[in-house]
Parts: sequence; C-alpha cells; structure tokens
Amino acid sequence: MSERVLISELQSRADGAVSVSGWVETVRDQKKVQFVILRDETGAVQLVNPATREIADDAATEASDALALTESISALSTGTFLTVHGTLKHDERVKLGGTEIKIGSLDIAAAADPETPIASDSGMDKRMDWRFIDLRQRRNNLIFRVQTTLEHAMRTYWVDRDYIELHTPKLMSSPSESNAELFSMEYFGDQTAYLAQSPQHYKQMAQASGFGKIFEIGDVFRADPSFTSRHATEFTSVDAEISWIDSHEDVAAMQEELLATAIAAVKEKHGAEIAELFGIEVTVPSLPFPRIPLAEAHDIIAARGYQTPRTDGDLDPEGERQISAHVAETFGHQFVFITDYHAGIRPFYHMRDEKTGLTKSYDLLFQGVEITTGAQREHRIDVLEAQAVEKGLALEGLEHYLDFFRYGVPPHGGFGMGLARVLMLLLGESSIREVTFLFRGPTRLAP
Amino acid sequence: MSERVLISELQSRADGAVSVSGWVETVRDQKKVQFVILRDETGAVQLVNPATREIADDAATEASDALALTESISALSTGTFLTVHGTLKHDERVKLGGTEIKIGSLDIAAAADPETPIASDSGMDKRMDWRFIDLRQRRNNLIFRVQTTLEHAMRTYWVDRDYIELHTPKLMSSPSESNAELFSMEYFGDQTAYLAQSPQHYKQMAQASGFGKIFEIGDVFRADPSFTSRHATEFTSVDAEISWIDSHEDVAAMQEELLATAIAAVKEKHGAEIAELFGIEVTVPSLPFPRIPLAEAHDIIAARGYQTPRTDGDLDPEGERQISAHVAETFGHQFVFITDYHAGIRPFYHMRDEKTGLTKSYDLLFQGVEITTGAQREHRIDVLEAQAVEKGLALEGLEHYLDFFRYGVPPHGGFGMGLARVLMLLLGESSIREVTFLFRGPTRLAP
Repeated sequence: MSERVLISELQSRADGAVSVSGWVETVRDQKKVQFVILRDETGAVQLVNPATREIADDAATEASDALALTESISALSTGTFLTVHGTLKHDERVKLGGTEIKIGSLDIAAAADPETPIASDSGMDKRMDWRFIDLRQRRNNLIFRVQTTLEHAMRTYWVDRDYIELHTPKLMSSPSESNAELFSMEYFGDQTAYLAQSPQHYKQMAQASGFGKIFEIGDVFRADPSFTSRHATEFTSVDAEISWIDSHEDVAAMQEELLATAIAAVKEKHGAEIAELFGIEVTVPSLPFPRIPLAEAHDIIAARGYQTPRTDGDLDPEGERQISAHVAETFGHQFVFITDYHAGIRPFYHMRDEKTGLTKSYDLLFQGVEITTGAQREHRIDVLEAQAVEKGLALEGLEHYLDFFRYGVPPHGGFGMGLARVLMLLLGESSIREVTFLFRGPTRLAP
Repeated sequence: MSERVLISELQSRADGAVSVSGWVETVRDQKKVQFVILRDETGAVQLVNPATREIADDAATEASDALALTESISALSTGTFLTVHGTLKHDERVKLGGTEIKIGSLDIAAAADPETPIASDSGMDKRMDWRFIDLRQRRNNLIFRVQTTLEHAMRTYWVDRDYIELHTPKLMSSPSESNAELFSMEYFGDQTAYLAQSPQHYKQMAQASGFGKIFEIGDVFRADPSFTSRHATEFTSVDAEISWIDSHEDVAAMQEELLATAIAAVKEKHGAEIAELFGIEVTVPSLPFPRIPLAEAHDIIAARGYQTPRTDGDLDPEGERQISAHVAETFGHQFVFITDYHAGIRPFYHMRDEKTGLTKSYDLLFQGVEITTGAQREHRIDVLEAQAVEKGLALEGLEHYLDFFRYGVPPHGGFGMGLARVLMLLLGESSIREVTFLFRGPTRLAP
C-alpha cells in the first residue's frame, strides 16, 4: 500500500517510476498505440502503451512480453480495477492533467464482466439497480464528498459550542410521531417494536435530562407510500434541540448560522468542482435569513396570481415555490423561514403563542422546497396533555413521552432537517434519489 | 436567552447581577437561611436566601414578597427546572466553586413531581425505567460528552484523510450477515424488509464504486437473545473500509492510529473530570499495538493455567481477559490485536492467506474485551463464491452482494467497532447499559 500514488498527486510529482491504482474508464486500442483512462477516487490519468501487434517466432523474451502486455490491454474491460507500474511523464499536450504514464506492467485486481449493465445515460431506475457502478461517475463521487464536508462542518459547529451528540434508539415501544406511516415488527416473541419516524421524543428527553444542547445525524423511517422526488422511506435526518430558549426564534437563529457555516465550508472545499460538474455557483447565504409569517405568505402568493388548493391553510409545493421566488426576487435570498403556523396544521407538541394562539414554529424553505420544521416545544405538562387530547390522541400511547415533562424540564425547542433535501437543492439535482447513497422507497429495497 | 449565564462561567465573572438556569439538585431549608444547589449542563452553584418566616399583618410589600420567596423555595422539589435572577458573590468559604448567588427572584419553568421515582443508588433496571432522570447525574452527563469528543476526533481523523462518510440503508431486502439474529418486517404490502446487522455489504459496495476510503457511524440491529453486559439489540457501530490494501495489517495500522488519536482527544478535554468522577486515569495507547497470532495466544493462556472450554478454537471471554492480562503485564499495553484466525470461525468473506490458509483478519481486544473484528475481504468472485458455498450459504440470497464483485473491485478491507464497548472500557464501567443513551435489549424497548 505504501507505494501507491493518488492520481491527484501526479501533477506535482517528478517524472519517473510510479504506481497508480484505479479502474479502467475507457480503452482506446489503436493499431500503433494504446490509451487507457484510469480513474481513482481523486482523478483520472492517461496510460499509454506503444502497441506490439506481431513478433517473430524466435523473438526475444522482451518482444513476447511486449506482445503479451499489448494483448492484455486490448482485453481490458471497462470497470476493471488494476494497479499500473510505469513511468510518469509531464507533457503539456495531454489534456487530462498534463501528465501521462507509460505502462510498464499491469496488476489486475479484479477484471470486470465486459457486459456493463448500465451506461451513464441509463434511466434512473436502471442506474439504481446498479448503483455501485453508477456511483463511479465523477459527479456522483463528488456528491458524497460534498455531503461529508457539509456534515462535518455542521458537527464541528455544534461540537465547538459544547453540544452533545446523541444516538437515539430507532426501535421503540410506541410510535414517535403518529400512527400513520409506521413500520412495525415482532420483537423477541410477544412484543411489538416500531421504527422511529424521528428522534423527536428522545431529543426532548435529553432536555429533561439537563443535556442543554444536543444534535443527532441519524436514520429515520417513514412507511410513506409517496413517490415524489422529495420523499424517501428511509433517510438521514439532521436534528438539534436546545434548552432555555425564549421562542422558536432562538432555534431559527442557530439553524441559519449552522447552514451558512456549513455551506461556506462546502463552497471553499468543493466550489470549483461543483461549478464544473453541476454548473452551479454555490451561494453562501447571508444572515439573517428572511422571515415571513404564513398569513403574509398567502397574501404574497395570491398577489402573484396563485391560489393554493389546500383547504387546511398550509402551503402546497407550488405555494412554496412561489413564496421562494418572491424572496429570491425581493431579497436575493435562497432561504426563507415561514412562521406563525396555526395549530391545526402543527403537531400537538408545538408551543402556542399566548396572544395569537399561533404556534411558535417555522418551516425553512430552500430554493422553493421545505427542508425543515422547527419549533419551541410545549413543556408544561397540563398544556401538553390538553393539546394532545384536542388532537384526538390517546394519552396512554404517549405515556413514556409525557413522563419526560412530569419531573422537571426546561423550555426547549429544535428542528429536524432532511440531509438529502439540502444536498439535492445545493447541487441543483431534481431528485433525492440522485443524492442518496442507496435510496429506499415503496418499490425500492435493493440492492 | 441572551442573558442566561452558564454556571461554569460564574467563577470568572465579576460580582453583581446574574441570571442562571438549571434544575434543583438539593434544597436545605434551614430556619434562618435557605440553600439550593442548582445544576446546569456545565456545573452546580449554591443559591442562598435569608429566610423570612413570619411577617406582621400590616407588613410592607417588600416583606410579603420576602415571605412569598421563602415559601416558594421551601416548596421547591428536586428536579424542578428554573431560572434564578440574583446577585453573584465570590466567597472562598463556599465549597462549590467559590461562588454563591443570593436569590432575587425565581422563574419556575416546570415544577417536578415531588415523588422522584429513582435515587442515584437505585438498581440498574429502575434507573433505566427513568433514564431521563438518571442521566441528570454528573457522571452520566460526562459519559456522553466523552462520547461526543471520541466520535468527533475519529471523524476528524478520517475527514482530514479524505475519507467519505456514508449513511448506508438499514432496511434491506436480504440479511447482511447471517439469517440468525435478524429482525424482519412487512414492507409495503408484499415485500419483507430486514434490519441491517452491520453495514458490511454496503461499505464493501462503496469500494466497488471507487470511493477509496469510507467510514460510517450508525445504528445496527441484532435480534440476539443475549443478556451479557457487552451485548445490545441495537447499538452504534463505528465502521471503516479502505481500498488497495496489501493485507489486514493496513486496516489494523489505521485503526490503532485512529484510536490513539481519539483517546488522546478525550484525555485532553475530559481527563481531569474522568479521574474525578470515574477514578480512572485515561491512558493514550502507544503505537503500534501488540499483535499476537491466535495459536500463540492459546499457548500463552494455557501457560497461565487456563484452558478455554470452546471447541472451535476461538477465545472465550475468560481467554480474552487472560491474554489481555498477559499483554498488560508483558508490554504494559491495554490493547492487543489477535491475528491469524482459522477460516472455520470467520465469515466466508474474509480473505485467506494463500500459504497458511488462515484468514487475513484480526480481533482487537481492549482491556480484555473484544471491541472489533477487522479483515481484508475476499474480492475475487470465484474464490468468494467457493467460500460461501463451503460455509453452506445459498448463493441466491447473496445475489446483490456478489454482484459487487463481478464488475471490477479493488482489494479492500475494514473493521467494525462497537462504540459503547469502547466507551464502557475507557471509563471502567461494568456494562454497556451504563454508557448507552437508551439501551435496547430483549426485555428493554422503553422508554
């Protein structure tokens, strides 16, 4: 392993003996010269070999070795992983990085079946069937390097501010959000376990435990028979919860700073490559993000000529696009907090403003798509129980959750954010399927 | 939220008006003076109030306010979360941090039920029933701050070295490891989904995708009816996988450096507090960790007078303690890699040494307990299939997994490590239940 050189390191390396490892992207097998494009996780390089097509029957070993090498290059299939030992040469005429490796010998790690089942222009479902090949594309690799940077910047933001990282259980004895969209299974014989739809209960529990500020980036599960480009059965949720807030505004202020910090880190590390491969100039959002109360948002949308078909007063996806378009035109901003949702369209645990009765909550839209719901939580047990009953929930099923509020709890609030949605919008992709390592949906459980 | 001062900040703060928020740990309600110990996520402080027990019927407002304050302090129950506005005074005689706050007024956020269901010396099962109260203990809070530091140091180690962070799906169409210990559920009608027992399949898939180096810290699930102090039904697994290795030694070299880096970060940030609350001096392990082939380990253990009862040649828990005791005595080291396991006690996907037939794998023991299995994986499809058949596995069930090896794949290997086990041993705890936020076991699915 010690002698392997990454392809990204070739440019700054002196001419001479070198070994690189990667997979065959293309082979151009000309009569007199053979070219192979070899890619690794850092880049691609051109390998070259002067072809030896025929030798005399009594040729020297050297000549028969050359013939064998030529034939093995001719036989290389796309996707084959190999190590090449050769001679590095800088040459300005080579388009790909200005370097070329003259092949000395090849060590084939695993030859690919020559019948590659997908091409880069295959349909999405076909590409998902063969996702491990699809992910070799440079832009797909970049997606997950961007995700890594985005997450690490968020975690670093929190860790620097003394947040505690949680891993809450995904197996629960009762539903975490609602009885709908719930996976259940037999648990050691006579028990039933449910998969967590969010870490909501437990991140609130951490507040009753006096943890102060917590975050979790983990899996959540929704048995949601939805086929939109924004929904998944299993996805990575970015969650935070903080104590001693005055209102949801304290949560929003943290979240906007978090996002600006993380997007700045992405721009710094990958901005040029994102521009090249996605045609997108990453914009670091200015602070504060615009805020618009929901009622005002409806007026703005109506003035733009759109009437939402929903009767519950919430925004529909087109309404979200319209208000975001307004914000982009008016404030030049990609983000907007929609605030002051009425209680009818919010969960029972959202705190309500004493004067207006509206919830102390927000949705955050990014380029026209909802990526977050945030709120101050109701921490007063009597009010919380009354709000649950008002929503028609049975208090028995909420027993463990309600206990968290009986033995002391600070005022608190937090948000949950879909990681893939942020990534999708940041990179201008049309579906979260494209930015999820292995998407899960109603008809997609493999590979 | 702006005016709240953390208790840890009081010592360096000038005397004067101050507001702190936290929960009531104790109340000492003496006739002439009242003391409250208030704790927040950063520490504890003594609050003091000169008691007003009686006032004249025609007393001034000030006196009746004083009486009301005294009575509300007398009524405070343990666990009540409140904000106190008062006057900070440095006083060397105060044991707790050398500061005291004279209470001006109290804002009670949520009064605790006075009947606290557990005490700090309650049995483990009772404490787990009321885990959210149990977690208020200072040492329990420290456990999760240590976990946060440990994880962040590991992720930073990897991110600095260009690893990609993965979130692999936990819902799968086929078992990830074996058919035993598996949770299954109905998935959108006629399908069956299984919960991932490890990210093994998918982190290998990422190698076929040319990701090079990856890590994941995520949930795994084992329907394991085991009740030992080292096993859980759901736990956080720390996983890494890297390409272009020569053997499992490349994996071991990465893991030992990773652990030394992470433990050093824990010692630096929390060493003093761990010594105070757990009586443990954190030891940063020296590199390299000792390595002992399994056969040699058996000889050493036998020479110590212990004969393992297992007939398959693996170490049993007592054997692991014995070999670790030997390593501690001989090398003064808390870690040891046991290497060269024979194929009969390893999964089919472990690569075998061509000369010896032994697997290119290791177990890592930390203070006598196994925390990791690592290995080079077999990446040659024909050998892999033969090894699966030899183990009696049906190739049909492994179809998606085996596909990863048909279209090119580099040599690769990795490890999986239980986060809670590392934490348990690092802090000298006797059970992973103590270091898991919410433990899940055969008889434990709530809260």
